[in-house]
Amino acid sequence: MLSRHHVSKLFQVVVRRASTAAATPNVLPDKTEPFYHRDLEIHAASPSQMKPKPDSLDGLKFGHTFSDHMFEVNWDAAKGWTRPIISPLHDFHIHPGAKVLHYAIELFEGMKAYRGVDNKIRLFRPDQNMARMRRTAARSSLPDFDANELTDIIADLVKLDKEWVPYSNTASLYLRPTMISTDPTLGVGDPSQAKLFVLTGPAGAYYPTGFKPISLLADPEYVRAFPGGVGSFKMGCNYAPTILIGKVATSLGCQQALWLYDKDEKLTEVGTMNIFVFWTNEQNELELVTPPLSDGLILPGVTRDSLIQIAKSWNEFKITERYPTMDEIKRATKEKRVHQVFGAGTACIVSPVGRILYKNTTTKQYEEILIPTMDSKIDVMQRLYDTINDIQYGRIEWPGWTKIVA
Amino acid sequence: MLSRHHVSKLFQVVVRRASTAAATPNVLPDKTEPFYHRDLEIHAASPSQMKPKPDSLDGLKFGHTFSDHMFEVNWDAAKGWTRPIISPLHDFHIHPGAKVLHYAIELFEGMKAYRGVDNKIRLFRPDQNMARMRRTAARSSLPDFDANELTDIIADLVKLDKEWVPYSNTASLYLRPTMISTDPTLGVGDPSQAKLFVLTGPAGAYYPTGFKPISLLADPEYVRAFPGGVGSFKMGCNYAPTILIGKVATSLGCQQALWLYDKDEKLTEVGTMNIFVFWTNEQNELELVTPPLSDGLILPGVTRDSLIQIAKSWNEFKITERYPTMDEIKRATKEKRVHQVFGAGTACIVSPVGRILYKNTTTKQYEEILIPTMDSKIDVMQRLYDTINDIQYGRIEWPGWTKIVA
Repeated sequence: MLSRHHVSKLFQVVVRRASTAAATPNVLPDKTEPFYHRDLEIHAASPSQMKPKPDSLDGLKFGHTFSDHMFEVNWDAAKGWTRPIISPLHDFHIHPGAKVLHYAIELFEGMKAYRGVDNKIRLFRPDQNMARMRRTAARSSLPDFDANELTDIIADLVKLDKEWVPYSNTASLYLRPTMISTDPTLGVGDPSQAKLFVLTGPAGAYYPTGFKPISLLADPEYVRAFPGGVGSFKMGCNYAPTILIGKVATSLGCQQALWLYDKDEKLTEVGTMNIFVFWTNEQNELELVTPPLSDGLILPGVTRDSLIQIAKSWNEFKITERYPTMDEIKRATKEKRVHQVFGAGTACIVSPVGRILYKNTTTKQYEEILIPTMDSKIDVMQRLYDTINDIQYGRIEWPGWTKIVA
Repeated sequence: MLSRHHVSKLFQVVVRRASTAAATPNVLPDKTEPFYHRDLEIHAASPSQMKPKPDSLDGLKFGHTFSDHMFEVNWDAAKGWTRPIISPLHDFHIHPGAKVLHYAIELFEGMKAYRGVDNKIRLFRPDQNMARMRRTAARSSLPDFDANELTDIIADLVKLDKEWVPYSNTASLYLRPTMISTDPTLGVGDPSQAKLFVLTGPAGAYYPTGFKPISLLADPEYVRAFPGGVGSFKMGCNYAPTILIGKVATSLGCQQALWLYDKDEKLTEVGTMNIFVFWTNEQNELELVTPPLSDGLILPGVTRDSLIQIAKSWNEFKITERYPTMDEIKRATKEKRVHQVFGAGTACIVSPVGRILYKNTTTKQYEEILIPTMDSKIDVMQRLYDTINDIQYGRIEWPGWTKIVA
């Protein structure tokens, strides 16, 4: 059976590569010379290639609109990285045998650029995304790169398309760094060719008319991640299996799945977000709980980490990284000790949970659990949301968390 | 916790769609008019587009050589399937935001065409691959299609490239049906555009110089599939996480991973193959054991099913679908009751296991378990291999298992 020790050991192997670039021989890709920001070539779009910006950010569907330019750089096991290039958004020519199309050798990141109240454009904790991207690359047998070099290139990409960064204190420019394996051979094995690219596109306000609490389907039948798997890496393979479950949730009147794990029905994640529970615990302490990173089940979200750090800085209540279980949530709800439950992620920052539709595996019945997130007298969720927004839009400063790019 | 009941229920939902095309409302894609063989357009390669066939099949690396033509057909949620087209092998133009590149919404099949001793070209049990592909499509939220129509199109594709089917009783033409989600939007959600395609390419003899027993790394730290997951579907997402583990195995002198599951260290699969154990069980019965399909952990291999059916037809020993555990294998090996252990898959038919390098999680030590597969007096593996080969190359007939295409 998988102990935490084992899982964390594999993780450490991977982390070691990512943090020191000291490759473990025979297992991780050869140390590759990174690509450099100083080699960046920019082929700017001609006026005729440039697309009209959306008239309005309201109702802009997430991920449907892309800015004028993209970044890409290719890798080959024998030759290393090619010259990094920013050029107008274009289709890829991909061989139909490319490994990414068959074995899902692919990863991505999600991050944002914000136009601040001072009209300066900021990235939020890009070092965190770059570190996670390198860890995921190592786990995916995709090549390593230098985090600072890619960050500087992303900064140039955002600068070039700075008019695509919404003039708004609620909207932003979404950034999507991605890496895929492109070698055109069907063997299930080590990729020898890869492409790293970055897309950007405007994202409207997530809550144009205020917070909207969501309903979650909690059915232990559906499992997102497991010890010994890759749930803690941002690999494409973690997402495909969730699409059908999202549709099952919708068919039952819910917006997302609440992912449970194991016999004791641990709460692990919500849809594609981390989860936070703010309650009065059984020791009558005010406590903010979120699942731990130690088992490899949880994606180490940048928003998750930021909310923990912000809450800790207040020093007003207990903050614990552990799994709440369904039994605990049911009991605490009944005893009116649950104040707020919310998802946390880059897209929404926080997403209030109003209701859990729980499939009781003993009775085979659905149980409705109402969560008073929106009615809580202590509104930790709103306060966290406001603080992180203040940092992202430059109203307050948190040392080291923002990088001004234009 | 996930009971067998739950897992099999989800599976059944999916199977129901796949077997009756009666969609479950709100969850599975709308019933789509299939594409038809009668609408197939063939754009044959010009002589200058045709590639030279390999001089020799020896040393032909798997999946590196493709035939002249490919099949493709596109799907759109609003418009349904486009006209099916066979045309010269070509790159795809894929939007960099396509869901397949980010969320691994993709699936594939592996099957072969064989040139028989009568010079006729046969597909082996294509109905099995088509049924599995439809089940996997349903689980992946990819569109449904008609199995017979696609089989007839594949038959035409093979016929057109029939000179690519090796003149050999050991080599074959590998066929790779694939489906990917192509809609250029970053939301994690239901695909609204897809592409189904089929590639083919010659595959050399798997054992040009006779069977080669392989060594397996059995480390419970690495887990392939889990209840509530998608291990029983041929989705691309099952493969990406295994690449690094394959490299770990190689670094320890093994060729493949032996995938264990749960505290009792059940043997589940070998690399990308199903596993068979032929032993004298504790009741002193001769028994062929392979893991069951009931938990959703095991890919329902066509070779697996064929070997079971062939062995059953002999009626000479017990055949049981259950998980052998590492403890049982260790004890049985010590007591000299293990005769043969082998992997089973389309590429190799059978792959003899000579050695298991087992990481004992209690002692943290590696233990070497030698399996006398190649020295067994009762050579069930060879006999199964010969029988399936005889069927595939037309030396003997098994009703309904082969489809002559040219």
